[in-house]
Amino acid sequence: MEPFHLALRMDTFHVVLDLSGTFVFALSGGVAGVKHRLDVFGVLVVSFAAASAGGIARDVMIGATPVVALSDWRYVAVSLLAGLLTFYCYRFINRLSRSVLIFDAAGLALFAVTGATKALAYHLGPVGAALLGMLTGIGGGIMRDILITEVPVVLRADLYALAALAGATVVVVGQVLHVSSAAAMTVGALLCFGIRFMAIRYGWRLPVAAGG
Amino acid sequence: MEPFHLALRMDTFHVVLDLSGTFVFALSGGVAGVKHRLDVFGVLVVSFAAASAGGIARDVMIGATPVVALSDWRYVAVSLLAGLLTFYCYRFINRLSRSVLIFDAAGLALFAVTGATKALAYHLGPVGAALLGMLTGIGGGIMRDILITEVPVVLRADLYALAALAGATVVVVGQVLHVSSAAAMTVGALLCFGIRFMAIRYGWRLPVAAGG
Amino acid sequence: MEPFHLALRMDTFHVVLDLSGTFVFALSGGVAGVKHRLDVFGVLVVSFAAASAGGIARDVMIGATPVVALSDWRYVAVSLLAGLLTFYCYRFINRLSRSVLIFDAAGLALFAVTGATKALAYHLGPVGAALLGMLTGIGGGIMRDILITEVPVVLRADLYALAALAGATVVVVGQVLHVSSAAAMTVGALLCFGIRFMAIRYGWRLPVAAGG
Repeated sequence: MEPFHLALRMDTFHVVLDLSGTFVFALSGGVAGVKHRLDVFGVLVVSFAAASAGGIARDVMIGATPVVALSDWRYVAVSLLAGLLTFYCYRFINRLSRSVLIFDAAGLALFAVTGATKALAYHLGPVGAALLGMLTGIGGGIMRDILITEVPVVLRADLYALAALAGATVVVVGQVLHVSSAAAMTVGALLCFGIRFMAIRYGWRLPVAAGG
Repeated sequence: MEPFHLALRMDTFHVVLDLSGTFVFALSGGVAGVKHRLDVFGVLVVSFAAASAGGIARDVMIGATPVVALSDWRYVAVSLLAGLLTFYCYRFINRLSRSVLIFDAAGLALFAVTGATKALAYHLGPVGAALLGMLTGIGGGIMRDILITEVPVVLRADLYALAALAGATVVVVGQVLHVSSAAAMTVGALLCFGIRFMAIRYGWRLPVAAGG
Repeated sequence: MEPFHLALRMDTFHVVLDLSGTFVFALSGGVAGVKHRLDVFGVLVVSFAAASAGGIARDVMIGATPVVALSDWRYVAVSLLAGLLTFYCYRFINRLSRSVLIFDAAGLALFAVTGATKALAYHLGPVGAALLGMLTGIGGGIMRDILITEVPVVLRADLYALAALAGATVVVVGQVLHVSSAAAMTVGALLCFGIRFMAIRYGWRLPVAAGG
C-alpha cells in the first residue's frame, strides 16, 4: 500500500502531466489557427479543441462524466493562456518551435500516458487501456486538423498513432509488472516522444501495401 | 423556493426554447442539404444532425444519458418536420430567410442558453457551464458543415463562438446573482442573437494576429 | 419467459452479428486506407475507426460505458485481423469484393439491427431505438470517410441511411409484436442489405428538391 501523501503526490504528478499536455496541444492548435489567419477568438477555439478533444473523448468513452475538461477550470485556463500566448507572441512561439510538430509530439506523449493511466483506474483491461491511451493522444490533433480542414496528422505523419500506442503500452505493462506508476508514465512518455522525434528527424516510415 | 407550478412552467419554458432551437437549426441543415442537391432522406439526415449534434455533445459530456435527442421523441419529430418543410417548401423557406444565417443565429442563441442552464442543473462550475453552453450552441453548425464538407461556420463567421459564449455567460451570471432563470435565458439569447446579427449586418470582426 | 440457455444463445447471436459487422466494416476501412496509400499502421487505424465508430457512438449516447469497443478485447482483435488481412492480401480482398461497397452494406445491415436491439435493452422508446440503430449503422462509414477526407457515403450513396433505418425499424416493430428477437434481427439485416444492394445495382434514387 502507498501511504496517503504518496498517493496524493502520484495524483498531483498525473494532473501536472495532463495539464502540460493540455498546454502544448493548445500551443499547437493556436499556431495552426494563426497560420490560417483566424481572429483571436477563432484561435482560442482551435486551441481549446486541440487541447481538450482527446481528454473529452477519453472521459466520454469510459463514462467519467462530467468530463474533466469542463469540470476542472484549470484545463480551460491553461488552454486559454496558451491560445492567448500564441496569438500575442506568435513570432516568438513559432521561432521557439520551428513548427507545430514538436509541441504536437509532446502533447501526444503526455496524453497517451495519462489516458492509459486513467483507463486502468476505470478498470479497463490491458488491450482497452492501451487503445484508449492512443486515442486520448491522437484525439486532439485529429480535432484540430478537422476544424482547419486538413487531412488529420495521424494519417499523414510517420509513426504517429504507433508512437502513442507504444507510450500507452508501457504504462499498461508497467502496471502488470507492478512498476511505480510515475516511472512507467515517464518512460512511456519519453518513448512516445522519442519515436515521433526520430520519425520527424530521420523520416522513418512504415511499409505501404503493394497494389493499393 | 419556487412553488411547484412555477418550477413546472420554468421547465416547460426550457423545453420550448430547446425545441425551438432544434427547429431553426434543422431548417438551417435542411437549407444546406437542398443547396447541395441531396435527396429527401439526405436532407432529413443533415437536418437532424444540425439540430441534434450540439445537444447530443452536451448530454454526453455531462453524462445525461440516454441523450434527450433520442429519448424524447419530440426532438426527432420537430427536426423531421423542419427537414420536410425545407424540402417541400424550399423556395418559401429560402425567401423567408434569404440565407441560412438568420436561422443559424437563432439556433445558436437558443442552444447556448439552454446548454448553460442544463450544465448548471448538472452542477458544473461557472466556467464549465458557460463553456458547455457555447459548445452546445456551436455543435450543430459544426456537424452540419463537416457533413457537407465546408469549413465550419464557427471558424469562418464573425463573432460566432464569442456570441454563444456571451449568451451562455449571461445565464451563468444570472444564477450567481439569483436572477430568475427565464429572465436570464431571455436576455442571454437576445444578446447572443444580437451580436451575431450585428456581426453579419455590419461585418464586425475581431483582430487577426500579426505575422501569421 | 425464455429459458436461461435460450437467453444465452440470443446474447451469443447478438455478439456474433456485432463482431461480424465489426469485421466487414474493418475490411471496408482497410480497403479505403490501402487505396489512399496509407502505411500499415494508418490502415489499421482506419480499419478500427470504421469498425468501431458506430458502436462507440451508440454506447456513448445511451450511457453504456466503458464502451464495448474498448472493454471487450474481441472487437479490437477482429478489427486488427481484418486490417492486417486487407493490408497483406489486398488484391484478394479487393477482387473478392470489387469494391468497398458490399462490405459496407453488410456492416450497415448488421450494425443497424444490433444497435436497435441494444437501444431497446437500454429502454429507449421505439423512435429513439430505430434512430440509434440507424446511427450505429452509418457511424462507421462516416468516420472512415471523414478520416480520408471524402464526402461521407451517407450523403453520396443512394438509400444509405434509409436502408439502415428500415433494418432498425424491423427490429423495433418485432419487439412491439413480440416476435423472436433473432428472427426480427435476421429479417431487418436482410432488408437493409437488400435495399442497399438493389440501390447500388439498379441505381435506385430518392427525389431531389425543386429549386435547390
